[in-house]
Amino acid sequence: MAASRAYLDHNASAPLLPAARAAMLAALEVDANPSSVHADGRSARRMVDGARRDVAALAGGKPEHVVFTSGATEAASMLLSPDWRMGKAPVRMARLIVSAADHPCILNGGRFAPDAVTRVGVDADGIVDMASLERELAGHDRAQGLVLVAIHAANNETGVIQPVRDIAALVKAHGGVLVVDAVQAAGRIPLGIADGYGDFLILSSHKIGGPKGVGAVVGVSDLMMPVPLVSGGGQEKGFRAGTENVPGIAGFGAAAREALTGLAGIDGIRAMRDAFERVVVELAPDATIFGNRTERLCNTLFFAVPGLKAETAQIAFDLAGVSLSAGSACSSGKVGPSHVLKAMGHGEAAGALRVSIGPETGEAELKAFEQALRAHLARRDGRERAA
Amino acid sequence: MAASRAYLDHNASAPLLPAARAAMLAALEVDANPSSVHADGRSARRMVDGARRDVAALAGGKPEHVVFTSGATEAASMLLSPDWRMGKAPVRMARLIVSAADHPCILNGGRFAPDAVTRVGVDADGIVDMASLERELAGHDRAQGLVLVAIHAANNETGVIQPVRDIAALVKAHGGVLVVDAVQAAGRIPLGIADGYGDFLILSSHKIGGPKGVGAVVGVSDLMMPVPLVSGGGQEKGFRAGTENVPGIAGFGAAAREALTGLAGIDGIRAMRDAFERVVVELAPDATIFGNRTERLCNTLFFAVPGLKAETAQIAFDLAGVSLSAGSACSSGKVGPSHVLKAMGHGEAAGALRVSIGPETGEAELKAFEQALRAHLARRDGRERAA
Repeated sequence: MAASRAYLDHNASAPLLPAARAAMLAALEVDANPSSVHADGRSARRMVDGARRDVAALAGGKPEHVVFTSGATEAASMLLSPDWRMGKAPVRMARLIVSAADHPCILNGGRFAPDAVTRVGVDADGIVDMASLERELAGHDRAQGLVLVAIHAANNETGVIQPVRDIAALVKAHGGVLVVDAVQAAGRIPLGIADGYGDFLILSSHKIGGPKGVGAVVGVSDLMMPVPLVSGGGQEKGFRAGTENVPGIAGFGAAAREALTGLAGIDGIRAMRDAFERVVVELAPDATIFGNRTERLCNTLFFAVPGLKAETAQIAFDLAGVSLSAGSACSSGKVGPSHVLKAMGHGEAAGALRVSIGPETGEAELKAFEQALRAHLARRDGRERAA
Repeated sequence: MAASRAYLDHNASAPLLPAARAAMLAALEVDANPSSVHADGRSARRMVDGARRDVAALAGGKPEHVVFTSGATEAASMLLSPDWRMGKAPVRMARLIVSAADHPCILNGGRFAPDAVTRVGVDADGIVDMASLERELAGHDRAQGLVLVAIHAANNETGVIQPVRDIAALVKAHGGVLVVDAVQAAGRIPLGIADGYGDFLILSSHKIGGPKGVGAVVGVSDLMMPVPLVSGGGQEKGFRAGTENVPGIAGFGAAAREALTGLAGIDGIRAMRDAFERVVVELAPDATIFGNRTERLCNTLFFAVPGLKAETAQIAFDLAGVSLSAGSACSSGKVGPSHVLKAMGHGEAAGALRVSIGPETGEAELKAFEQALRAHLARRDGRERAA
């Protein structure tokens, strides 16, 4: 990003942290394959092992239960499988329950057949409908196999935080397995996979200031694991084959370390986000702020202004040097109506804009945003007066 | 790797090329998600598109038929699928034929059930048994579905080069689809996916001097494609979801460009490899050089010396500052008997060592290898005299 631009799209991808960059550079000096037994190979192996400890710490789990993947989407495709194993014994997952506001990589159902996937709704605040979830869990015929539930810890568009511990208790009470998509939550709220926060967490490096192309599954244990998605060699204890992305993993580890210590600073980020929100409300008193009646991530502001088309506003912000997003950026360049807002009961008409910030966001970005929004609203008002 | 060590394990992982490193560093400056429509996102997108052109050129194919993956193993797991689509219409692959000397990620059969995978043998030189392959192809009942064949272009242990064009013609004549694992061949022999070299190539970045954690599938076309392995967003035209590994892909692109121009210099690498081979033959006249009666990659030397245990020799070389390999390094730290040598009719006893070099390998590495081999042979002879 050019230094003169204001980057307000952390939930799409966070800027690389200096510590992550340094860890990657060190790893790029190691030529070898971490599976090679010579000294060069062992150097690479140590880097992977160090990162494994850091990622485990962020998840509140154990290093031996971390499986590195190429990202959160692969992690979801791996975990959302009807075929699991307890040791060598096959275990069948007969049904997958997801929430209607989940990320496409969860909604998609991974390796489940479409008719084996059930969606439960969310309320007007974006919180999973617990009564529906309980009904689905209670109605599941366990003779067919286990039930797998996959829910995001925090929403990428609204920032709304799910009651993960309540969901975990409910899923556990019904003998199910819970996958928590913690991609947006990591580094913004405390996680605790070993402590009632579900059975598996999904993490993404580039959403916490690490490099793109790496993510992880962190389990409470590895007693029961999905049949591998990527198979071949015996890497990652046989759960995920392929030469490890050593520089990516090293960068992820450094970012995880920073994310964990960064939890102490989230009040500052929240204060800055609230400043952005005040700008919106002051300049457009009729704006809707989505998810603001419930717990939200400290860094996320999702809003809509009547009469403001998200697509054109996004272009106007871009031309003014402000990078922000109209909903999520998960599929190539598409800007469509938000399935998250639809699930919350807002119609397709509610074109919304997302500001998502990070620890480095400051007054310069706030000012750039304010100027761009003011100018765009003035143009809208001009058009309205002319009409 | 420490500058004082001799790194002779290119087939496990090649050192990062300066051009690849520079491309990665430039990509690390771009914060955004390539799916974001703002200027930062478009910068990231341009880097991915540029690399796509370079990787296509290396494969002899078209940029629009390149699908980036997290590596060759994922590419194999993606392609080796019984479920394909021609547009939206399902296409069934009823059988997978592999060679007994393939890499574990191919041998493993990807998403095929084990009983749907047939292995054809290789001869004493490691070349695929064409008569067996033809028999299997002719015997396949096409009413059950298509047949998929997956063969390596060059072997990672011996460097033996398969007659890919002959195999491609045979597979085509029987209406099959051919996947060519070109991981070790890329940059060492010319490829030509658009010109009778199979239907899909598998490439790995870190074997040609790019970063680890990225690879590609390059097809003749994308009319018929496997059902996605990693699903979610619409990236890579829907064939592979997940935020693109922008720095990895940028580094891969730069390495692909170098690999293509580097083809002009393979005679020099072959001369250096032959120098290593002369050292082995001079110091151990009873050594067996595997695959030397047929076409081999310019950079690979796989040999066994009677009475020399590969495991202990590898440790001795390592202590002497020479990184080489006892067969492939594909599964975590394991040093077992080579399935490739077994397939060639050599028993499990034939512990072998692999020297695999690159363009930067010079006299210093040759001398270090010679000294280490001489010392280790002297110790063996000492033990023999003492016995």
